[in-house]
Amino acid sequence: MRVQPIEWRDGVVAILDQTQLPQRVVIHEYDDWRGVAEAIRTMQVRGAPAIGIAAAYGLALAARAINASTMEAFRAEFDTVCRAFAQTRPTAVNLFGAIERLQTVVATCQTPDEARTRLLAEAHAIRTEDHAADRAMAEYGAALLPPNARVLTICNTGALATGGIGTALGIIRVAHQQGKLAHVYACETRPRLQGLKLTAWELQQEGIPFEVIADSAAGMLMAQGKVDAVIAGADRIAANGDTANKIGTYTLAVLAHYHGVPFYIAAPVSTIDPRTPDGASIPIEYRDPTEITHIDGLQIAPTGAPALNPAFDVTPAALIHAIITERGTFRPPYDFSQLPLTRKGRSDS
Amino acid sequence: MRVQPIEWRDGVVAILDQTQLPQRVVIHEYDDWRGVAEAIRTMQVRGAPAIGIAAAYGLALAARAINASTMEAFRAEFDTVCRAFAQTRPTAVNLFGAIERLQTVVATCQTPDEARTRLLAEAHAIRTEDHAADRAMAEYGAALLPPNARVLTICNTGALATGGIGTALGIIRVAHQQGKLAHVYACETRPRLQGLKLTAWELQQEGIPFEVIADSAAGMLMAQGKVDAVIAGADRIAANGDTANKIGTYTLAVLAHYHGVPFYIAAPVSTIDPRTPDGASIPIEYRDPTEITHIDGLQIAPTGAPALNPAFDVTPAALIHAIITERGTFRPPYDFSQLPLTRKGRSDS
Repeated sequence: MRVQPIEWRDGVVAILDQTQLPQRVVIHEYDDWRGVAEAIRTMQVRGAPAIGIAAAYGLALAARAINASTMEAFRAEFDTVCRAFAQTRPTAVNLFGAIERLQTVVATCQTPDEARTRLLAEAHAIRTEDHAADRAMAEYGAALLPPNARVLTICNTGALATGGIGTALGIIRVAHQQGKLAHVYACETRPRLQGLKLTAWELQQEGIPFEVIADSAAGMLMAQGKVDAVIAGADRIAANGDTANKIGTYTLAVLAHYHGVPFYIAAPVSTIDPRTPDGASIPIEYRDPTEITHIDGLQIAPTGAPALNPAFDVTPAALIHAIITERGTFRPPYDFSQLPLTRKGRSDS
Repeated sequence: MRVQPIEWRDGVVAILDQTQLPQRVVIHEYDDWRGVAEAIRTMQVRGAPAIGIAAAYGLALAARAINASTMEAFRAEFDTVCRAFAQTRPTAVNLFGAIERLQTVVATCQTPDEARTRLLAEAHAIRTEDHAADRAMAEYGAALLPPNARVLTICNTGALATGGIGTALGIIRVAHQQGKLAHVYACETRPRLQGLKLTAWELQQEGIPFEVIADSAAGMLMAQGKVDAVIAGADRIAANGDTANKIGTYTLAVLAHYHGVPFYIAAPVSTIDPRTPDGASIPIEYRDPTEITHIDGLQIAPTGAPALNPAFDVTPAALIHAIITERGTFRPPYDFSQLPLTRKGRSDS
């Protein structure tokens, strides 16, 4: 089964509601861009690449609804919608990248009709590029793994997060196909349990051997010598290689460093933000404390117990053995201040 | 409110069912030792000291039911019950310590009636000693904290775990009373969420400022310089200071080491096992994978998803800045091969 987190269906954006997985497969069809923005905010769609794709289709949808006869009027309304999308999730840079690409398209259009057509084409292009990127990234990443690799990963970085084969999970998929993967340890990934719900679901469907673990068990497994590599995705990579990803990623990087286990980040180049100089400049989203105190709507904590809920943390470049992209594998010291990346110098392949 | 996890009520053992907290306060009264053993196994009562106390009262209860006219017959039956208790939880050494203390009492009794009386007295003594130990430990521990300390802790090490004021949480309580505690970060402690449920409940009742965090957020907080000390309890301390405690404790110790944050273990001397030479000799309990895949009876993972569920991990002595006991604060290198501990040499106070 090919998982499709987002699909353009002739004028509506269909989004697989990942908050209901794995218990229920529910697809919402949005014919209004506001529904798509809300789906991003409430994490019906999540994963940096998928957020970018959803925003692009949401903007294409908005473009069809803008009732403007001049490009000036069109652009004014379109920019308002862009600002609304920009406020849905602050950390994933793919969101801002997608918005910017579509704004660049609008800037060169002569008529609203041309804009509507070209915006949809651009959204399709973003999706297609991300899918191709996943595949290339997976080949580069799998090449880094030893035979019979036991890989630990966090969150969901699979088809659900990208629409392609995934970033970190794409590498795991390809390593499995190549017969070099022995086992996956999937961190359950509190608070929203994307590992327990989504990664487990994808791995199960592909018949990849795995176990879910509590996030806090990663240290013990590394101490026991049971982890050959940690591979995580990214929500934003700064120019110096500092990487924001799901809360807990930094802890895994410190553990890997302490145990001499390679720690890899896998992400498409669209996740790299050359204008963010370093990790300190990445805005970190703090989400509702009820994501900690309640699980799937069930109150677990005592009423009124305060909780702190950072959704992401930043792993400094120094702890990252390699950043795997569709343009090759980059090694420290990282310098992503000039995009597009070229292979000279720092790339393995 | 004084929390009483275990109480002897004139021939019955009353156990506060901690699996139902904080939503419901349910107390079970057991008049059969098998009920007490099952309450330990199913974690109605948990926390190493509380497990020891519960086992002691369970054995005192069993002694009353043994229908034997000779000490030989009494001892044979008593030993069978001891073996049953020994199988309830494999890691907490207080369980085995309590069993052994009661077996030593039985060895010196002349009649079954004498044994029944003295066993109950010994159970009371274990409880009383543990309570006094908590208080002494708390004073030693609080003395280690800086002013306005921000302390990170894991699991529940409070009144619910000991019946006294707690071990790590006892230190937090006393530091709060002394006005030197600024904030507590309580790791929620997957899989069973004792931090989110029990520690939050205790801290709330005492008005101690705190926030619950996902276990995976500890690294980020340390990187931000927001943690002045980590204090954890212990389920078993080996002769060389290696310490088994709730899964995730080892990860916190590695994080603390990396960030230069002091990492302390707080436990009564009854948690030290001089006959366990080191961490590798501590049996680690693996519990049912449904503790990961289900939360409070609610299935979260896809059906059939495998999970690995170690209940404890081992923190090597080298990562522990001090072990705080009721006999003082011990610093590395630890040598607990000779009990009772004396203060000469390694203790701070």
